[in-house]
Amino acid sequence: MKKKYSEMNQTERKEVYKELTKEYKDYQYKALNLNMSRGKPSPEQLDLSMGMMDVLGSTADLTCEDGADCRNYGVLDGIPEAKELLGDIMEVNPNNIIIYGNSSLNVMFDFISRSMTHGVMGSTPWCRLPKVKFICVVPGYDRHFAITEYFGIEMVNVPMLPTGPDMDLVEKLVSSDDSIKGIWCVPKYSNPTGNSYSDETVRRFARLKPAAADFRIYWDNAYTVHHLYDHHQDHLIEILAECKRAGNPDLVYKFASTSKISFPGSGIAACAASLNNLEDIRNQLKFQTIGHDKVNQLRHVRFFGDIHGVVEHMRLHADIMRPKFEAVETIFEEELSGLEIGSWTKPNGGYFISFDALPGCAKAIVAKAKKAGVVLTSAGASYPYGKDPMDSNIRIAPSYPSLPEIKTAAKLFALCVKLVSLEQLMDEKTPAEEAAKPVSDEKKTAK
Amino acid sequence: MKKKYSEMNQTERKEVYKELTKEYKDYQYKALNLNMSRGKPSPEQLDLSMGMMDVLGSTADLTCEDGADCRNYGVLDGIPEAKELLGDIMEVNPNNIIIYGNSSLNVMFDFISRSMTHGVMGSTPWCRLPKVKFICVVPGYDRHFAITEYFGIEMVNVPMLPTGPDMDLVEKLVSSDDSIKGIWCVPKYSNPTGNSYSDETVRRFARLKPAAADFRIYWDNAYTVHHLYDHHQDHLIEILAECKRAGNPDLVYKFASTSKISFPGSGIAACAASLNNLEDIRNQLKFQTIGHDKVNQLRHVRFFGDIHGVVEHMRLHADIMRPKFEAVETIFEEELSGLEIGSWTKPNGGYFISFDALPGCAKAIVAKAKKAGVVLTSAGASYPYGKDPMDSNIRIAPSYPSLPEIKTAAKLFALCVKLVSLEQLMDEKTPAEEAAKPVSDEKKTAK
Repeated sequence: MKKKYSEMNQTERKEVYKELTKEYKDYQYKALNLNMSRGKPSPEQLDLSMGMMDVLGSTADLTCEDGADCRNYGVLDGIPEAKELLGDIMEVNPNNIIIYGNSSLNVMFDFISRSMTHGVMGSTPWCRLPKVKFICVVPGYDRHFAITEYFGIEMVNVPMLPTGPDMDLVEKLVSSDDSIKGIWCVPKYSNPTGNSYSDETVRRFARLKPAAADFRIYWDNAYTVHHLYDHHQDHLIEILAECKRAGNPDLVYKFASTSKISFPGSGIAACAASLNNLEDIRNQLKFQTIGHDKVNQLRHVRFFGDIHGVVEHMRLHADIMRPKFEAVETIFEEELSGLEIGSWTKPNGGYFISFDALPGCAKAIVAKAKKAGVVLTSAGASYPYGKDPMDSNIRIAPSYPSLPEIKTAAKLFALCVKLVSLEQLMDEKTPAEEAAKPVSDEKKTAK
Repeated sequence: MKKKYSEMNQTERKEVYKELTKEYKDYQYKALNLNMSRGKPSPEQLDLSMGMMDVLGSTADLTCEDGADCRNYGVLDGIPEAKELLGDIMEVNPNNIIIYGNSSLNVMFDFISRSMTHGVMGSTPWCRLPKVKFICVVPGYDRHFAITEYFGIEMVNVPMLPTGPDMDLVEKLVSSDDSIKGIWCVPKYSNPTGNSYSDETVRRFARLKPAAADFRIYWDNAYTVHHLYDHHQDHLIEILAECKRAGNPDLVYKFASTSKISFPGSGIAACAASLNNLEDIRNQLKFQTIGHDKVNQLRHVRFFGDIHGVVEHMRLHADIMRPKFEAVETIFEEELSGLEIGSWTKPNGGYFISFDALPGCAKAIVAKAKKAGVVLTSAGASYPYGKDPMDSNIRIAPSYPSLPEIKTAAKLFALCVKLVSLEQLMDEKTPAEEAAKPVSDEKKTAK
């Protein structure tokens, strides 16, 4: 049985610290160069889609189902077979889908931009309003927050719970403040916590009564088919259908892409929304472009065939990802469990493990890991303006490095957590027990 | 020697009209279904690039010159070899280039949108200004005008002359009115007139002294390598270099794409600008996307090899396009020359022939052609708000139909011009001679 750091006296702490420092120096001698900062697929994962490169040969017929030549101009919102495939991935009717270019982030940026200049379904353009706010579920996805910050939209934090965003708070904010125009959500295998919204959470989302008619839920379902396990898979109530049932059909924009299915940067993105919303969106889109890359749409459809092909393909991704996630979890369990100096999530899918250190330790842990050659996402990145008020959350992205590298990086990370926690406990002026109180043990039950 | 319609008496006109009407009815019996409305490459042209489909095979190494894996995230502004290729196409230093997605129109839209919400290099966002204006060279490209109209930007017409825009007027407007923030230009093989800006015009552009610091020339060099002939090729002074020489390095954004080189909708687009402008652009771009489709960038580079490959490839396009342009010109010459009921351009490249009918006749000609199964670009489309004040200009796009179809369509078009002109002359209340005055014979000398 390990002794909790909080229950050690300062002499014990110093002794442990001395040993660990020796270990840390050994790592530094190794001159590691590992990167766990972004949710990037590994080269092995990318190899899975190489068949896509020549699935359309130089003699292929590139006519799509409705007779359009995919090589030429036209087809503003996507070829029918791509709508069907993405519809199946996103669990919505193909008629509710627009197929975009290579990046759903780009689509979300453009949606905010359009709302700034033209409003939403006839509302006042946001650039003419004195104040526009977005709710940001924290910890969350840094690139979402960066978009709202870029447009000068004020961000209001709402905490992520094991069931999803704190819906009491969301409901209160959304119904009382008409300057709140949206909320960023990653509802499934959330970035970075890895947990998924509960049925009740989704139902409450669909039943929001926003003060602003142009409020929209930005439902970034980035990890919809990105399971790690065959049998432990999270399942979400489909939000478009639920909004429709609740009498709020226009409340949500749903986003997805094949970035982490085929190739990041060379996949296809999509938005699903009500027909009213789609009409509003197309009214802009027709000025912005003649159409997106239909050849790439067709390439995806011909490679995957159908949703079953996608599911089988994602199983191959999972076979590569799962051991990495499990290695991190096992090492954290071995190295950190019982010390009460941090908690971490154990997701069933997605790209991230979220780690909560003792308050005030995250930045120092990330800095210490970097000094030993392991780059993590900047501490604070999962909060608007890069400011984690507790300086506690660290996002861990185990996908890119190889399995042996991940093991090394996870061990080093645990070591840095220990060292920084001890440093804090040794510096304590208030009683150590108080400071070392577990931050959010409840997250450990998120699985 | 044909008799000018203006010199015929009404009896002669009626006789000719009767004969032509019989001819027209014969066309109607044929139930034609031809489309000369858009600058779409023909299927034969698209076939030229089919080798691109599997130039990156399933075992290919997709690492680019600087070591980045083109299949993964990253590389915001394009891979080095794509910058070099597009740099050669656009005649600029690769360091002055950003490679985008599949559509330069999309890039231009985004530029206007960014200026609306964030201004240009620190200027007041245009959405906060009481009035923003753009100069539109007319006749011009309808999709340019549609973008400015979408953003509520007031459009000021400046006529296109054989040497390019009327620079006296451009200089006067730009230097005196600080609400004028830009000008749309298609400087080479212009859409729709097909002529190119003279050296003097380019030099005067580079020396503009705009009242607004955030004024930019939108230089849409869509047809830069799109020649019809080996020996009669228009050549432009390179505008970025000329602006730099003139001490106005930040004055211009230059756009191009491979849409009509490889595949429309599946090509790659680019913007060239000064380093100051590029910094301003990247400050937005980094929020909008993680990067564009690098696999497609690499696909283009591997397929074309280098600029010489592009030049050779464009020769194959020209071999398909040239007979179509020449067929239209020959038929117009045979059918219309000497009648003084219209003039047309004879470009050395690009995608369009511009036809100027007698004032007040364009809409009726387009309608008549449509009734006989030949779809043309809507009359007025080449003017802001779709309003050609003279109702005279018609854009002819000979690229898409086959050569025999083009011949049929051109004959029918000429017939419709004759019929509508006669209708007008027969209706004349003012002296027919006055109304039938040639509209712009000077355009015929544009070649």
